[in-house]
Amino acid sequence: MQSNRLEAFSDGVLAIIITIMVLELTLPDHGDTFQEFWHSAGTGLLTYLLSFVYIGIYWSNHHHLFQVVDEVDGTVLWANLHLLFWLSLVPLTQRWLDESSIARDPAVVYGINLLGAAIAYYLVERAIFRTPSGNALREALGRDLKGKLSPFLYLAGIGLAFVTPWLGLVPAIIVALIWLIPDRRVERYLKRAADRADAD
Amino acid sequence: MQSNRLEAFSDGVLAIIITIMVLELTLPDHGDTFQEFWHSAGTGLLTYLLSFVYIGIYWSNHHHLFQVVDEVDGTVLWANLHLLFWLSLVPLTQRWLDESSIARDPAVVYGINLLGAAIAYYLVERAIFRTPSGNALREALGRDLKGKLSPFLYLAGIGLAFVTPWLGLVPAIIVALIWLIPDRRVERYLKRAADRADAD
Amino acid sequence: MQSNRLEAFSDGVLAIIITIMVLELTLPDHGDTFQEFWHSAGTGLLTYLLSFVYIGIYWSNHHHLFQVVDEVDGTVLWANLHLLFWLSLVPLTQRWLDESSIARDPAVVYGINLLGAAIAYYLVERAIFRTPSGNALREALGRDLKGKLSPFLYLAGIGLAFVTPWLGLVPAIIVALIWLIPDRRVERYLKRAADRADAD
Amino acid sequence: MQSNRLEAFSDGVLAIIITIMVLELTLPDHGDTFQEFWHSAGTGLLTYLLSFVYIGIYWSNHHHLFQVVDEVDGTVLWANLHLLFWLSLVPLTQRWLDESSIARDPAVVYGINLLGAAIAYYLVERAIFRTPSGNALREALGRDLKGKLSPFLYLAGIGLAFVTPWLGLVPAIIVALIWLIPDRRVERYLKRAADRADAD
Repeated sequence: MQSNRLEAFSDGVLAIIITIMVLELTLPDHGDTFQEFWHSAGTGLLTYLLSFVYIGIYWSNHHHLFQVVDEVDGTVLWANLHLLFWLSLVPLTQRWLDESSIARDPAVVYGINLLGAAIAYYLVERAIFRTPSGNALREALGRDLKGKLSPFLYLAGIGLAFVTPWLGLVPAIIVALIWLIPDRRVERYLKRAADRADAD
Repeated sequence: MQSNRLEAFSDGVLAIIITIMVLELTLPDHGDTFQEFWHSAGTGLLTYLLSFVYIGIYWSNHHHLFQVVDEVDGTVLWANLHLLFWLSLVPLTQRWLDESSIARDPAVVYGINLLGAAIAYYLVERAIFRTPSGNALREALGRDLKGKLSPFLYLAGIGLAFVTPWLGLVPAIIVALIWLIPDRRVERYLKRAADRADAD
Repeated sequence: MQSNRLEAFSDGVLAIIITIMVLELTLPDHGDTFQEFWHSAGTGLLTYLLSFVYIGIYWSNHHHLFQVVDEVDGTVLWANLHLLFWLSLVPLTQRWLDESSIARDPAVVYGINLLGAAIAYYLVERAIFRTPSGNALREALGRDLKGKLSPFLYLAGIGLAFVTPWLGLVPAIIVALIWLIPDRRVERYLKRAADRADAD
Repeated sequence: MQSNRLEAFSDGVLAIIITIMVLELTLPDHGDTFQEFWHSAGTGLLTYLLSFVYIGIYWSNHHHLFQVVDEVDGTVLWANLHLLFWLSLVPLTQRWLDESSIARDPAVVYGINLLGAAIAYYLVERAIFRTPSGNALREALGRDLKGKLSPFLYLAGIGLAFVTPWLGLVPAIIVALIWLIPDRRVERYLKRAADRADAD
């Protein structure tokens, strides 16, 4: 199977996840004022923003990942579906987080969800390493400090949520900010490869 | 009509089906604890996982199927829409199954839904057999033991659901596990065809 | 703008319309038996089937239409969005039809919705006629008996709904059956054009 | 990253936004007459029409924009996600506007939403200016009177909403009508560039 079909399907799933979260936001029952709007939708808007950024980061990294991949096998395909499964749970866990006004257990479950997605992403990379495109990806990723650091920050967040629920979201926000700095590694690799090809 | 338009549309429908099922999962009304979350969303998460794997399998097989097809006619187009119709009912029947905490009749209806989709998939294969790409597909599929076995397992599941509801899901889980072993037949056929072309 | 972007966007909208209608189907509140399922979801399943077939027909015809079109201008683009607007209302009007167990006014509104979509489709054809691809489409469509007949059948349905609500759906079902016979005109035209090119 | 992936993802998100708004429209609880339908869904249909036209305009302009862009960098990617974020809020703010039967604060929030999207769109243009395709876009856009005028009309709408809520929607309707006149600037630029290339 060619990787562009897998990318198109993943694009579709991510586009839906990122959009339907808005359907979950609750509006004031009979109120028409800013205060009531903020009271019923305020927390939802903030957690929606965080989840939106997360799905955006996964979409962006997902494409950088598959830019160096041509053909995918069954293992990559199911590793990718496994990743999409974790990401498809984000609207559910963020809705619980929102409806509980950021209580302890929902913050822990949200953290577990982000951790699961991070591990699934790591497994997609492992699965690609075993394909013919693996060496190119390995070289492009390099030491992958960001990828190795993120799971530990999620774990820290899960721990902190047991202390103070909203504190559990802080490491997740830090991870988001780290990843918002766009991932130039793959593009740099592609550029180096092109330069080397020109030099030959 | 070229098959890639049909694939893109099917991709879209399957991506939506696989994602909106999460919208159906029920959260605790006023509870913020793990127990309440598991109580209200636990069964839903398990049946969601099963349905997710099923849609994933259909997506994966669908693409393997259309990899050897170039042009589709009206019969293939409507056979494919017929398949998408059955798959689009999965979020409904799985929601009933979930809300009933896996009762008898919902388990039977869920089984009928999976059986209907399996028959529809078989009809898509038949419809392709009659197109110019038919011989290539026939050769690629070979004896198709998995395809022929699945409907009987669904039938067994429908029967078992009358005995004990959750037992009716066991054959469906077995079918899922059988198909999770990625379908290498089509890829093997394409490889053989390429090798033969090289040998000439 | 090239027509393939317009087709991809329309594909997306139609794939969503065809899938979200299932979200609207109502399940029994606390019932786990076939009778309760059929009682609460029966009418919904039948009207869903009708709407599914309709969206399927529009998708199929839409692609046949744009197969002979290369470039689209602003008029075609907005005529197409106008068509998508009418089709996007189908989940709403079919939900009302379902919730009313096919009452008079909902049947009339559903008929108006189908009529509006048919007129919008006709306007898309007119808009394409004025582009450089217009002559090819004009020749491909020929006398277009089906296209000219459909609006009158919808009008008849709207009239009949005033007599007996479910009778108003009969012409809509007849139109669906007429169109289910796949549209070979465009494919025949493309074949003739290819044959002529070969003969030159 | 090539711009066509970004366009496909944006297409998906916009197709979902434009379609799910219909899910939000409220139907009469137990009424089957035109009056009750209009009473419960009337305002919703009108605001849905306005939002549909808006998303349609953004989709249309978005594609005109990216027609002259080949490669996008991380800044363009996140500027585009920022735009999609504002647009994804339209179903929420239009639902509040609808449920409040166009009250003051919801009309102000809807106006802020449109203003935010307009500013985000402007930032996408700025981000593209800094890429290698920037000069082509700069030349294609010219003075961009429509783009510069729109934010001020949204601001006027927000102000007017404080006087009379529905008056606040008038400037938004005017902006929609201005933009409905299809944007020929980019197409004209592409034509001029082609003509110049022919003349050389």
